Amino acid sequence: MPSETAREVIAWCRRLAESSEEPGFTTRSFLSEPVRGVHAQLSGWMQRLGMVVHVDAAGNLRGVLPAAANGSKRLFIGSHLDTVPRAGAFDGILGVVMGIALVERLGAKRLPYAVEVVGFSDEEGVRFGVPFIGSRALAGSLSAEALERRDASGRTVADAIRAFGLDPNNLAAARAEADALGYLEFHIEQGPVLDQLGLPLGIVTAIAGQSRVNLVFTGDANHAGTTPMNARRDALAGAAEWIGAVEQLAQNTPGLVATVGRIDAHPGATNVIAGTCRASLDVRHADDGTRATSVKRLIESAREIARRRSLEITSEPQLDQGSVPMNPALVGMLERSVARAGHAVHRMTSGAGHDAMVVAAHMPATMLFVRSPGGISHHPSESVTEGDVEAALTVGLGFLDELSREHRG
Amino acid sequence: MPSETAREVIAWCRRLAESSEEPGFTTRSFLSEPVRGVHAQLSGWMQRLGMVVHVDAAGNLRGVLPAAANGSKRLFIGSHLDTVPRAGAFDGILGVVMGIALVERLGAKRLPYAVEVVGFSDEEGVRFGVPFIGSRALAGSLSAEALERRDASGRTVADAIRAFGLDPNNLAAARAEADALGYLEFHIEQGPVLDQLGLPLGIVTAIAGQSRVNLVFTGDANHAGTTPMNARRDALAGAAEWIGAVEQLAQNTPGLVATVGRIDAHPGATNVIAGTCRASLDVRHADDGTRATSVKRLIESAREIARRRSLEITSEPQLDQGSVPMNPALVGMLERSVARAGHAVHRMTSGAGHDAMVVAAHMPATMLFVRSPGGISHHPSESVTEGDVEAALTVGLGFLDELSREHRG
Repeated sequence: MPSETAREVIAWCRRLAESSEEPGFTTRSFLSEPVRGVHAQLSGWMQRLGMVVHVDAAGNLRGVLPAAANGSKRLFIGSHLDTVPRAGAFDGILGVVMGIALVERLGAKRLPYAVEVVGFSDEEGVRFGVPFIGSRALAGSLSAEALERRDASGRTVADAIRAFGLDPNNLAAARAEADALGYLEFHIEQGPVLDQLGLPLGIVTAIAGQSRVNLVFTGDANHAGTTPMNARRDALAGAAEWIGAVEQLAQNTPGLVATVGRIDAHPGATNVIAGTCRASLDVRHADDGTRATSVKRLIESAREIARRRSLEITSEPQLDQGSVPMNPALVGMLERSVARAGHAVHRMTSGAGHDAMVVAAHMPATMLFVRSPGGISHHPSESVTEGDVEAALTVGLGFLDELSREHRG
Repeated sequence: MPSETAREVIAWCRRLAESSEEPGFTTRSFLSEPVRGVHAQLSGWMQRLGMVVHVDAAGNLRGVLPAAANGSKRLFIGSHLDTVPRAGAFDGILGVVMGIALVERLGAKRLPYAVEVVGFSDEEGVRFGVPFIGSRALAGSLSAEALERRDASGRTVADAIRAFGLDPNNLAAARAEADALGYLEFHIEQGPVLDQLGLPLGIVTAIAGQSRVNLVFTGDANHAGTTPMNARRDALAGAAEWIGAVEQLAQNTPGLVATVGRIDAHPGATNVIAGTCRASLDVRHADDGTRATSVKRLIESAREIARRRSLEITSEPQLDQGSVPMNPALVGMLERSVARAGHAVHRMTSGAGHDAMVVAAHMPATMLFVRSPGGISHHPSESVTEGDVEAALTVGLGFLDELSREHRG
């Protein structure tokens, strides 16, 4: 039975989605004008709840509910406030609104640790092509080089920070201090798994590692009418066979996703056999060893296909990003809280990157996924249900409780 | 042992290849300036051989060697003088030069029929996107609509004819009259078959029919990281499986060629599963029934793959052009002449369109293919060997001989 709070969380997200660079859509990049409106609304709410609010030098909105006693540790709850162009109303911001809603549910109660809700300024990386500006500032891993990245109008990240009325010289102060107890992120799944399983929540045990490789098959661009089948060196036919092998390996390897999303056949004419075919490969798995072995096997498979078809093949690695495990102790707390709330405990790997991945390098981190109906995300029809939000709130409160018991003792 | 004439034929082709719209390459479209130079050189040669030369209203160069007696029939020997951009030196023009070289070999001898050598103004269709302007004028099948097609500069075919100093009102006179005995075309194979068989010549029994179909596979453009393999509707993976089926059917159907040369996956990002995938299909066979059955099976195969993968599929026919058989009597004459010359008689289907295909609608037509070393064509490295040209000359003379015996009796 959804509570008033769950309805309020969804209403908040929908209302904040109207703060946009583009009327009729939700488009909100790093420190763009509509971010001021989001900050103002969320700050007001947090202040009404007795939280101390400020915006750090990376543009992160930060509100602190003090602990019951001075000198206590601090739990961070957060996610990002920026969006992709023409986004939905929940990706990112749900995790910030959930944090505040949990504080609201606490009422006058104070915990044996402070709770800091963070709305990160950038996770999507839309404006500067560099993601996680906000969470990297919190983790102390924002490089000087990243600050010099320029947007389409030629302004740097540092310029954008100044234009928002902040001082990039204060970035070091944005870093979470040694009192950090951990980080909890609520986020919509952005995939179909929970919806297909009929479950409201998923406990993230790791952010999958990711490999990207570009392959080029090269054959002969001959006449489609005059070249018999047995005299062809068809680069596209070779790539097509390999795409089948990619799919098959992923289907037969638990937890592996492998995708060819980009293909380009040259010269690309109806009556000419493709002489070259470029294809992208994206491979993700929670286990780095499985991922490395899979990439190796897929490149070997491309070589074998090329050899058999007298094609040439080149492969060029573009990305090799390791898996980031969530903190086992915090994951365990989420699991117990989910079980206490009467839901099935479903552990899962996040196939997409999230702020928790960056924060995890600096403090224990964990994530709770909320079901995405239809698996839809990065689209105006992205949604969550009141029942699922209520489930997440209950699990969040149970998590805060267990953490309280642990830090009281 | 190649004769002086064979060397001369190759030298003529190489020299004429220098008449080009683009220095350093051979690029000669319909009635472009360099065509004047080609006409002048070939006209001079034909006139020295006693031929009567004119350029008809379609821009075809036509030279007639009179028959031994008035009122005789007329054999046409020809091919085209235009080229694709950055072409080789033999595609088309070899057949014109071969016709004149055969007349030269006759010396003072006159045949019981006139021999008209034709250099067609357009076969490639580069300038106006409409091929066979020259041979369609000879066959009387050039439509008024075709004359109104415009080139990149906005000029119509009729404008181009006038700019060359000709009168489009005289096009009817370009049509071959009722005295036409037949049409013989020498042409490079533009494929690898003869080269692989180690044969100098091939006798064309038919120009293959051709089907073109555009297919669109539609699935869901989901996140490559968050969408498990079993929850995907991957349009590119479906298209790839189908490309394998296209290749397999063609490999298992004698004489069939089937090609997917164009593919476009949307949105085409490394980390997004393809939501739509467009692909082209080109199918050719000498037998129209086999071709129709094959196209039907391939579309059914696409439907079956789409059904199994929960994709949607549409297919749109773009072209359905029937096979054009060569004239059996003339083909027989070529076969006997090839055998008399001591070469293997190799009958073959032309997978590409040629002027003979258009002329065949108006008079008996036949074609002799000359080996393309490496199968290379539409490229500056396109070539022929002196030995193969000599073989073709010998076969041509034998053909003229047998035709003479037939028309003397």
